[in-house]
Amino acid sequence: MNTEKKRILVLGGGFGGLAFAKSIDPSLAEVTLVDKQNHHLFQPLLYQVATAGLAAPDIAEPLRTLFSEQEHVQVLMDEVVAIDLEREWVTTPHQSLSYDYLVIALGGQTNYFGNEKWEKHASGLKTLADAHRIRNEVLGAFEMAENLSGDSEERRRLMTTVVIGGGPTGVEMAGTLAELAHRCFRRDFRKIDPKQSRVVLVDAADRVLPMYSEKLSRKAKKQLEELGVEVLTGKKVNDIKSRRVILDDQVIEAENIIWTAGVAANPLTEKLDTPKAKGGRLKVEPDCSLPRFRNAFAVGDIASLEDAKGVPVPGVAPAAIQMAKHVANVIDKEIREGLVVGDERARSPFIYRDKGAMATIGRSRAVASIAGREFSGFFAWFAWLAIHLITLVGMRNRLSVFMKWIYKYVNNKPGARIAWRPSPSKAKPRKKKQEALR
Amino acid sequence: MNTEKKRILVLGGGFGGLAFAKSIDPSLAEVTLVDKQNHHLFQPLLYQVATAGLAAPDIAEPLRTLFSEQEHVQVLMDEVVAIDLEREWVTTPHQSLSYDYLVIALGGQTNYFGNEKWEKHASGLKTLADAHRIRNEVLGAFEMAENLSGDSEERRRLMTTVVIGGGPTGVEMAGTLAELAHRCFRRDFRKIDPKQSRVVLVDAADRVLPMYSEKLSRKAKKQLEELGVEVLTGKKVNDIKSRRVILDDQVIEAENIIWTAGVAANPLTEKLDTPKAKGGRLKVEPDCSLPRFRNAFAVGDIASLEDAKGVPVPGVAPAAIQMAKHVANVIDKEIREGLVVGDERARSPFIYRDKGAMATIGRSRAVASIAGREFSGFFAWFAWLAIHLITLVGMRNRLSVFMKWIYKYVNNKPGARIAWRPSPSKAKPRKKKQEALR
Repeated sequence: MNTEKKRILVLGGGFGGLAFAKSIDPSLAEVTLVDKQNHHLFQPLLYQVATAGLAAPDIAEPLRTLFSEQEHVQVLMDEVVAIDLEREWVTTPHQSLSYDYLVIALGGQTNYFGNEKWEKHASGLKTLADAHRIRNEVLGAFEMAENLSGDSEERRRLMTTVVIGGGPTGVEMAGTLAELAHRCFRRDFRKIDPKQSRVVLVDAADRVLPMYSEKLSRKAKKQLEELGVEVLTGKKVNDIKSRRVILDDQVIEAENIIWTAGVAANPLTEKLDTPKAKGGRLKVEPDCSLPRFRNAFAVGDIASLEDAKGVPVPGVAPAAIQMAKHVANVIDKEIREGLVVGDERARSPFIYRDKGAMATIGRSRAVASIAGREFSGFFAWFAWLAIHLITLVGMRNRLSVFMKWIYKYVNNKPGARIAWRPSPSKAKPRKKKQEALR
Repeated sequence: MNTEKKRILVLGGGFGGLAFAKSIDPSLAEVTLVDKQNHHLFQPLLYQVATAGLAAPDIAEPLRTLFSEQEHVQVLMDEVVAIDLEREWVTTPHQSLSYDYLVIALGGQTNYFGNEKWEKHASGLKTLADAHRIRNEVLGAFEMAENLSGDSEERRRLMTTVVIGGGPTGVEMAGTLAELAHRCFRRDFRKIDPKQSRVVLVDAADRVLPMYSEKLSRKAKKQLEELGVEVLTGKKVNDIKSRRVILDDQVIEAENIIWTAGVAANPLTEKLDTPKAKGGRLKVEPDCSLPRFRNAFAVGDIASLEDAKGVPVPGVAPAAIQMAKHVANVIDKEIREGLVVGDERARSPFIYRDKGAMATIGRSRAVASIAGREFSGFFAWFAWLAIHLITLVGMRNRLSVFMKWIYKYVNNKPGARIAWRPSPSKAKPRKKKQEALR
């Protein structure tokens, strides 16, 4: 047995990075976890920050706190600028970090499918900054509409939001926005009628939530429409301009346009000399390692894999967690048994266990597919609540979110409808090498 | 009796504006409340957002929600750009608003006493944007220190914060920052020793909290020092440069500099042809109206008044609320009895009732002066908690803050240690007239 501790470098503090660092045997390895943010973000609830239901600290937990009791894990808030698989080191603006094993868990980013010019007109939803921007702009648009007198075309535009992408994030965004606009705002405004606002959900596919059965997709669509969402499926977005979405057969004028239609791998993958799949994701071997660099692994949204049963592993949190735990087991075994890197005795193939999926569509509405059975309506919604509370990281967050959901359910009003102006530019002159952290 | 409803325009949704709009008789007036933010902000707890104890939505409540049941109050999220006292109207980028009565409750802003060039090096703390900037920069500085190897002078600088101003905000900021740095961070960092961090509180006066007795000031200083704050009283700030505070006898190198030393009136007062006091505050008659414009009133931090007993009314929330209620009574009476504007029968003088003051200095520590009696330590801290919970606006906020304080007390860790990078510039091209809302 090799008694020397191995140096493991984990890039990214999302679901994959966190699960790996929590799973690896502390007696075998020194782990360094690098993330450019100081927190783990519970992505599945990010749309709730954007739609004014939750505050940022409710769905985030400082990475240092998560590992404060684990002496073998060192957290660095720093930005990875280069990965050198040949020389086995990673570069940040502050340091070079060498490794024995590398776990790439950098996740994805919004993908405009080659139309990057759309980005300035249609906000993605991947970070807390995105969520706050969307919240400020949606709340601000209704305030602007209230200030207008007469000009009803502009007022209608201000009260229109287009969500592009009919996956879980798009469906949840659209449902919650419709609820906010049609119900919660009703008593609050005097001059405008929030019921006249529009929330339009656009997707090129012929149904929403294509990963579910057709029956559940139909139910989701029906629930969305009950909330007042206009669901436009089978409509390709031809162009996006300032406050304007251009489809084949119509042009929608909208103050706010939200893009949830695509995810691509972190752009750091571009420079890696290893096979890629669609969206720059890293093709991995059945054990989640890179083909030519068996001491480097990719897990979560940044990895592309058909598992040992031929199932394409989806880009969801449970898959990232399962891959990360699998990789921790592989590395544990390889170190413990003193095997050479890549020894097939340690390299069992990853098998994805689909525990089901669910999406909420506003208060008391959801669709769920659990253990082969399908649910919709209140029960699915309740299950959605429970699962998210259980899996949310941090007891404080669970308590806080639970209380806010009860409060919102009783009052039918989300609690975080606070917009604030962006910080005035207080351009502290910074030394170059510190800039990456800002 | 005059049965026609009067048009009352209230500028500002702080403590004064809110109390006025809540107090005025709904049968006598139509009230329009203008604020450039969509929320009332509970300023006394703003330092808690800056020091990562609370989230923004915990201490803010949407103005529309606060008045959703009051049909006679119309809320406008808009920015006042000019006040014309002669013609009796107020201009915003969107509209002109005429009035029968005007209540100016625009509050104050950070005052650098003529050294506006210090602003870019020393952040004020008046808005949620200020609070988030300070939180991000203080948390970020410790992360940067953790990333450094060797260079201990820079590391010490990164771990140093200077708070300028020994009033309640400065004392509360310094105490909470010291607690955060010396205690909460202790378990979280591996390479730096947070105990080596410095929090320095600087004031030109010879003691902190000069509005309290000398005995309480001494106690506050002692409590601050127990938490590890270096209290430098009697030290004038000669200059502030990038990450450097220059006193008479020393220069302090500090990554973060926070300025809480002065408040000036909203700059809109500059153009008003009416007498001003120090910091541009509007001198008001004993009834809180402006000397030559008796249908215009100023309340709260923007007003300057010695009350009928010769007591200078302090710039604190209870004073703003009391003034606002007094003005509501004056206007109520004038309208109800059909008196001409300024009729002395309606114009009773305002008398300030000092219900005491308190400042917290970290967990379980505070100083308080209530009904002529003075307290310090745990009891004062407990009273501080209770009073702030009672006066916090909104039941949801009270519950949320209460829970977070219990959690923080038990865990000795604040819950909102989440920093996020500023939103990348997503420069949506905007029409000119909408810019004021952004």
